[in-house]
Amino acid sequence: MAGGTHVKKLLLRVLDGDAGVPPPIWLMRQAGRFLPEYRAVRTQAGSFLDLCYTPELAATVTLQPVERFGMDAAILFSDILVIPDALGQSVRFVEGEGPVLEPVRDVQALAQLTTARVESHLAPVMETVRLVRRDLSDDVTLIGFAGAPWTVATYMVEGSSSRDYAQVKGWAFGDPEGFERLVSLLVEATTIYLCAQIEAGAEVVQLFDSWASVLPEDQFRRWVIKPTREIVAGVRARHPTIPIIGFPRGAGLLYEAYVAETGVNGVGLDSQVPVAWAAGALQGKVAVQGNLDPIFLLRGGEGMRQAARNILTALGSGPLIFNLGHGVLPATPPDHVAELIALVRETGVRETGVRETGARETTVRATGAGRG
Amino acid sequence: MAGGTHVKKLLLRVLDGDAGVPPPIWLMRQAGRFLPEYRAVRTQAGSFLDLCYTPELAATVTLQPVERFGMDAAILFSDILVIPDALGQSVRFVEGEGPVLEPVRDVQALAQLTTARVESHLAPVMETVRLVRRDLSDDVTLIGFAGAPWTVATYMVEGSSSRDYAQVKGWAFGDPEGFERLVSLLVEATTIYLCAQIEAGAEVVQLFDSWASVLPEDQFRRWVIKPTREIVAGVRARHPTIPIIGFPRGAGLLYEAYVAETGVNGVGLDSQVPVAWAAGALQGKVAVQGNLDPIFLLRGGEGMRQAARNILTALGSGPLIFNLGHGVLPATPPDHVAELIALVRETGVRETGVRETGARETTVRATGAGRG
Repeated sequence: MAGGTHVKKLLLRVLDGDAGVPPPIWLMRQAGRFLPEYRAVRTQAGSFLDLCYTPELAATVTLQPVERFGMDAAILFSDILVIPDALGQSVRFVEGEGPVLEPVRDVQALAQLTTARVESHLAPVMETVRLVRRDLSDDVTLIGFAGAPWTVATYMVEGSSSRDYAQVKGWAFGDPEGFERLVSLLVEATTIYLCAQIEAGAEVVQLFDSWASVLPEDQFRRWVIKPTREIVAGVRARHPTIPIIGFPRGAGLLYEAYVAETGVNGVGLDSQVPVAWAAGALQGKVAVQGNLDPIFLLRGGEGMRQAARNILTALGSGPLIFNLGHGVLPATPPDHVAELIALVRETGVRETGVRETGARETTVRATGAGRG
Repeated sequence: MAGGTHVKKLLLRVLDGDAGVPPPIWLMRQAGRFLPEYRAVRTQAGSFLDLCYTPELAATVTLQPVERFGMDAAILFSDILVIPDALGQSVRFVEGEGPVLEPVRDVQALAQLTTARVESHLAPVMETVRLVRRDLSDDVTLIGFAGAPWTVATYMVEGSSSRDYAQVKGWAFGDPEGFERLVSLLVEATTIYLCAQIEAGAEVVQLFDSWASVLPEDQFRRWVIKPTREIVAGVRARHPTIPIIGFPRGAGLLYEAYVAETGVNGVGLDSQVPVAWAAGALQGKVAVQGNLDPIFLLRGGEGMRQAARNILTALGSGPLIFNLGHGVLPATPPDHVAELIALVRETGVRETGVRETGARETTVRATGAGRG
């Protein structure tokens, strides 16, 4: 196991720009349906949001994967749609269908939303953070998170998952001043929310921008980069040492601008990002996190091992947080997760052996990790 | 109007590497539900596939947008799933749901599929091509098309549209030798089909790889680039002068490899591709096609005009086929299409004016357009 009470936690050192040997590992959606112990707890709560708002249960499922697999990080069990819920929008989760919201589609509809209740409404989430932090061992990092404004706005405006994002893009492209008011509200709420998570014990926060892929460049700069930069600045003003990871999934050719212009300390890579490219273009500026395709984890076997080794080879000598390029799929056998973690840790140990001979010393880089 | 019988058609000149002034324009899904005259014809056919296989009706809807708007190209009205249908797989279109196929998920299931019937089964499509070519005016180019093997395989294996592509990726990642047999079958069928379209009168062919975005780099090279290169080589061996456009939608950071390694003459850009980047990285090697976000066309107004002008400014001095980054949305007002075409043509005329003064002569590039 990595780290201990006497040194800074491995994941935090990597976000400072160190190469972790072995790299720290956690998995997006590591607390979730693929674990039988999660499914057992899930039945004890009514709705999915009830589970998010019941601190004892949410803390239990947050800790489950760490207890079973020994990940380097726990990520708060919650949902990106607690923010519209806290703002006053109606949000429901329909079993087998996903989220259903009462859509907000113009400036008039914003009148019903307010950031005034965000802290009180989300107090149970902060209690979850405190419970997890209390029970987490000293070498494991607690990651808080929120949805990034663009992605949260897609759900708020579409009212559900979408194929073409016609409503939200129509508003953003056709009435940018009006849409800006929704995004500003989300920047404010998200900054409050992340700061509260940090004050409750989160040591890193991640912004998920799951639908960053659907915008042309100009719109990406306005609705992905700008609000992210504002949240990073707002959180950092109050908590200057807390690292922030941004995950603009599917940003493709716009990844570089995102890293250069948002101020994040780490960037999540989806599975499409070529790792050799990321090593050259991104890893000198920030820590990178990713990017095994979840299908490799689902399938396991030599395919998974080879794909994981490719990532370690390309990115393992710089600041890397090993992760998937997207969330764990519900049908994933838990044994595959155990094998993946063992492989990442073993590769690290082998590399440490090499490093001790001095052969790889020069490849360990300090990057400054994009602070400030 | 551009061109005439005495010179090579504008769109073909651009695919040869010339800068068209004004650039030629057509729109993906220009024959479709947004046109009332399409909806009128649609009711005359039973199923959607019936419409694709009824030459008189398919030719009529192919010609409708050219007659109404005066595009520089007609694109054959058909569907990428005629290939699995011709191979012997059960394919149905369910109104409001999209395609439903009897899934093919292992090598055993391939036994029911054969390329032997592709030409005879798709003879009505060739008849459509002949009818369209007969009725098309001399300055308009007829584009044939097919789905690229990866994208067609996603439907064949998933059995419908998919959110996570778990089945097709599971097969491709877990049993690449078996999946290669499906892809080889598709390469063979698609080559036969495109050659038949060309022999019936198609002057350009386009390969749509709509789901190219969901693969990691190694898998993209194997299932997107390699089969595309094989089809390009196969078509070119029989029809060396027919230009081929590839559209690997969402290829992001892998666009450059796609252009360098497939041998296509033109590349379709989705709306996310930054146009300044494309001008530098791609347009010196091939003609580029795209990439207005269809939401701008749906909304119309100054937003659309500004977004279109950005594309013309960045890409208009090299080989550019103006298009959308994805298909026309059904709710698009036809008037917006007319306005867009007028704007593209007018900008071209204004630019011609500038050019005649000599000021922009140096920006007109000939590229050789990647001919194999």
